Amino acid sequence: MSITVINPNSNEAVTEGLRDTLTGFPNVTCLTLTEGPFGIESQRDSDAVILPMLDLMRATPEASAFVIACYSDPGLDAARSVSSVPVFGIQEAGLATALCRADMFGVIAIGEPSILRHRKYMRRMGVLERLAGERALNMSVDETARGANTFNRLKTVGADLIGDGAGCLILGCAGMARHRAPLEKHLAVPVIDPTQAAVTLAHGTLVASRL
Amino acid sequence: MSITVINPNSNEAVTEGLRDTLTGFPNVTCLTLTEGPFGIESQRDSDAVILPMLDLMRATPEASAFVIACYSDPGLDAARSVSSVPVFGIQEAGLATALCRADMFGVIAIGEPSILRHRKYMRRMGVLERLAGERALNMSVDETARGANTFNRLKTVGADLIGDGAGCLILGCAGMARHRAPLEKHLAVPVIDPTQAAVTLAHGTLVASRL
Amino acid sequence: MSITVINPNSNEAVTEGLRDTLTGFPNVTCLTLTEGPFGIESQRDSDAVILPMLDLMRATPEASAFVIACYSDPGLDAARSVSSVPVFGIQEAGLATALCRADMFGVIAIGEPSILRHRKYMRRMGVLERLAGERALNMSVDETARGANTFNRLKTVGADLIGDGAGCLILGCAGMARHRAPLEKHLAVPVIDPTQAAVTLAHGTLVASRL
Amino acid sequence: MSITVINPNSNEAVTEGLRDTLTGFPNVTCLTLTEGPFGIESQRDSDAVILPMLDLMRATPEASAFVIACYSDPGLDAARSVSSVPVFGIQEAGLATALCRADMFGVIAIGEPSILRHRKYMRRMGVLERLAGERALNMSVDETARGANTFNRLKTVGADLIGDGAGCLILGCAGMARHRAPLEKHLAVPVIDPTQAAVTLAHGTLVASRL
Amino acid sequence: MSITVINPNSNEAVTEGLRDTLTGFPNVTCLTLTEGPFGIESQRDSDAVILPMLDLMRATPEASAFVIACYSDPGLDAARSVSSVPVFGIQEAGLATALCRADMFGVIAIGEPSILRHRKYMRRMGVLERLAGERALNMSVDETARGANTFNRLKTVGADLIGDGAGCLILGCAGMARHRAPLEKHLAVPVIDPTQAAVTLAHGTLVASRL
Amino acid sequence: MSITVINPNSNEAVTEGLRDTLTGFPNVTCLTLTEGPFGIESQRDSDAVILPMLDLMRATPEASAFVIACYSDPGLDAARSVSSVPVFGIQEAGLATALCRADMFGVIAIGEPSILRHRKYMRRMGVLERLAGERALNMSVDETARGANTFNRLKTVGADLIGDGAGCLILGCAGMARHRAPLEKHLAVPVIDPTQAAVTLAHGTLVASRL
Repeated sequence: MSITVINPNSNEAVTEGLRDTLTGFPNVTCLTLTEGPFGIESQRDSDAVILPMLDLMRATPEASAFVIACYSDPGLDAARSVSSVPVFGIQEAGLATALCRADMFGVIAIGEPSILRHRKYMRRMGVLERLAGERALNMSVDETARGANTFNRLKTVGADLIGDGAGCLILGCAGMARHRAPLEKHLAVPVIDPTQAAVTLAHGTLVASRL
Repeated sequence: MSITVINPNSNEAVTEGLRDTLTGFPNVTCLTLTEGPFGIESQRDSDAVILPMLDLMRATPEASAFVIACYSDPGLDAARSVSSVPVFGIQEAGLATALCRADMFGVIAIGEPSILRHRKYMRRMGVLERLAGERALNMSVDETARGANTFNRLKTVGADLIGDGAGCLILGCAGMARHRAPLEKHLAVPVIDPTQAAVTLAHGTLVASRL
Repeated sequence: MSITVINPNSNEAVTEGLRDTLTGFPNVTCLTLTEGPFGIESQRDSDAVILPMLDLMRATPEASAFVIACYSDPGLDAARSVSSVPVFGIQEAGLATALCRADMFGVIAIGEPSILRHRKYMRRMGVLERLAGERALNMSVDETARGANTFNRLKTVGADLIGDGAGCLILGCAGMARHRAPLEKHLAVPVIDPTQAAVTLAHGTLVASRL
Repeated sequence: MSITVINPNSNEAVTEGLRDTLTGFPNVTCLTLTEGPFGIESQRDSDAVILPMLDLMRATPEASAFVIACYSDPGLDAARSVSSVPVFGIQEAGLATALCRADMFGVIAIGEPSILRHRKYMRRMGVLERLAGERALNMSVDETARGANTFNRLKTVGADLIGDGAGCLILGCAGMARHRAPLEKHLAVPVIDPTQAAVTLAHGTLVASRL
Repeated sequence: MSITVINPNSNEAVTEGLRDTLTGFPNVTCLTLTEGPFGIESQRDSDAVILPMLDLMRATPEASAFVIACYSDPGLDAARSVSSVPVFGIQEAGLATALCRADMFGVIAIGEPSILRHRKYMRRMGVLERLAGERALNMSVDETARGANTFNRLKTVGADLIGDGAGCLILGCAGMARHRAPLEKHLAVPVIDPTQAAVTLAHGTLVASRL
Repeated sequence: MSITVINPNSNEAVTEGLRDTLTGFPNVTCLTLTEGPFGIESQRDSDAVILPMLDLMRATPEASAFVIACYSDPGLDAARSVSSVPVFGIQEAGLATALCRADMFGVIAIGEPSILRHRKYMRRMGVLERLAGERALNMSVDETARGANTFNRLKTVGADLIGDGAGCLILGCAGMARHRAPLEKHLAVPVIDPTQAAVTLAHGTLVASRL
């Protein structure tokens, strides 16, 4: 039983961060898509990783399940159509989990432009009626990776979303998991890291398959 | 870390069945609501278990998470509003999980009358756009508990739902988990047991909370 | 022909207020649920009144129709499933009536927290597309019961909702009926008291049943 | 206090039928739109009655409320925009009432072609999620006006709609009210006559306005 | 092959403006409905033009397609039901075109009151999920017809709608086409003139019909 | 002014067919994506054409607009995000056009499996409320390319969709345009070829841009 988490960008530091936040889950392997761009920042980037990611999946026959660890869920439909094992996308898993924690959820994006893309994804997924709101940190990925200010912004934006009616929050990015627990504690509502959510579903699927 | 699964009916055999299908998940305790009816068969039954179930929850301070193991998710809103730990309903968790396995899902009900109640629940949850169909075994609970014919009906009804467009199936009842793996194998689409789905989400929530 | 209006809290003054605002409707009897809490202020309170309310209904065989006079419509599904006569909830009736008075409606809540619960109810009922907005008086029930300031707040909040696009307004509470007519006159849009709306529907149902 | 029910076609026998089915409601006056066609059978017919109907309304200053008694609700928006008293359409009122009687409703149309027009109306009104189905008698208006077969067809079609999931039924035409009570008795689910539903709402509005 | 564009108000200057903005499309004839009001400013005005417009259509047998050039699409259903050639409404065509230019669209209305009417139309058409927002110039039709300030307001309101998430804009009125190209250039998102959109669809329909 | 239609599969015969059905539109150039598969038959095929198609677009600087002529609209989001000229997808354009021809539309698919993919696309686009139904010819692409039986199946399936409530039909494939006019004549409802629909929108956009 092995869950393979693929970071579809080529930034090994991001993969390392994923490993850190998934230590509690057994049998997880995190891989970097070396053919990916350093960061996925456009629709083209997102589409460009699909074929190499499918190749990496084929080259990982030992995987019992895959998780695509980028919040735009690149190639999820294609991966499902060719893979013989379950494939999970982190945006999809984060949203599905949020449906089970509160009546209305909020999403915290890194940057403003992501909000519209996420909204389209939620409409496609059919869960828009449950969205209280989405708000952006309005920081660069670089800024979020560093310093204390990120957590301050998370607290402010999270509180605003609670004001919008959110009963739980989703971190709308693969790289903010280390803030999950402190933010949940500070805001007193469930905070969902989407990669952990996807690995949770993968893990449960595999446990059930052995019964 | 302890996940308390509550069977809100007083049928200890049902609780025993839950234990059997949750052996793969760590730290799970299954309790019977002794004040519950022998079976939950009406809206009144469903509402009647709420207060004793809240009492049982209060009397279980060691629980890190609760799962309400009846497909009508009785008292889920109330339990969430009074409990200091996460509470999961199995219908909600089963539906949320289905959203991550295929574009359209099907639900297998025991009896015809459940279909309308489930439909109302799915509309409330906001996921009706993803429903391919729901079909009933049209067997008594007693019949499903016994013999081979149950699996035959599951195969027929499951195949019909695939014909309706379902890419995955949910077992719409707490007591059919033993058929999950064989049915998935036979039909070659993901089959979701809702109690396992809820325990999966509870487990992941607890793992994440310790990071 | 007798319409039984049940105040599911035990505050007899509330029941008295209901009687005052229903004098124009024939054959109405208002009962207090003595087992109810003094005020229904939580999901638990709301669920806790269901069983005693069903008992009260059974103990009122002369009723030709029931109205549950609390804006959270506690026990409506259960009451319908066991009662042999029509049962109306006041939130549901108020919303249905609003659909017939203007294209978009607004709701005036007593307090901020009610807004999310009402929103969930409207989503469940499938009428959210018609909601222009909901805004709260942000007064305590106690304050609303007293003085002139309530009407001032109603005027302000009502005007804000008209600014949101509301063509008619619903008083989102069982106890504001005395403000209905003056507010309608002041704001020049239809204002709906939900208890009157439910009694209206009950009355029409009974008239039709005698033809 | 006077409720003016306008039959927008020029068939006085239809108006007479309306009078018969509204005898239980006080202060109702039924008028025939003499400029209307003998029957409203097309979109053009429906649009053609609007201006003369507005004239008739202006010429009826004693009305405290108007009901437009044709199931296509011709001119409802225009009438509301010019009338100083409440105006009710029977399709709208019938649908709103159905929302308060069961989770899913069914509609019985006279002829197949009406079904699509009604569906458009329900989508516009925002209540399509609650529709279990609509089915047609497939009789001419003439046939429905005569004999026993109409009731037989109503029983068959109504039972089919219950099979579709309908928990209550709407008679999708202004002229079937005499079948309401017998059909309700036969099928054991609420049956709603839309003209009675609209007069009910008009009546309640007027009663409330005098408090 | 002849596309007949009907200006349903009697203001010949408006018709002349339509001609100017349709010069690029072949075989277009613009007619004024002389029986129409000078401006369509109410629901009654909108309904009042239907019958004379149907007459004008019947009196124009050479038309291969009709375009109703008023943003409220008066009489569109009736025209389609009686005309043997395709009929297009400009609001409908503008909205349909917007669906093909960006994920979310914004609408620019002349005045505040139009916003609610347009919203009702979009709900009926089933495209409300794609609306980013609608905002009004808050100018009189007279003011918009004159001077430079109109373009300034268009720029401000358009930028606000882009801030709301709009990826393209619709000019919500038949008479602003001359601002389309400059506004598109200034805001750098597609700007859609609804009359041009309707004539485009009419033209394509006729071209295809000759293949 | 040049509209570039890209056939994203490498089958030159398909491109030739597109040319034949677009002869009535001026300034259209049809290109074959030589890097594409011979037919697009899977999600992977569909994703695989995106990058080479973007390259082909970049290598066609003379294009004033692009049309992606495959009914799965591969790469539409990516193409829009990198192209400086308008890009149209044929499924999207066909659906948008259908919204302007009748209240409910039907779609004719080649094969059964396409129906679910198309349904997902319509949900994403937010137009599912307008779908009367989709039905498949259940022929191979090869069979449809040949003989008379295709038209017979189109007539049968089209008539069934009209029975489902469709007031117009969309040919759900890039290669059936030659049947459009005869089918429309036979069935007496508008029939829409999606490639023609997309070229129509592209053409209108370009005409408007020159005013």
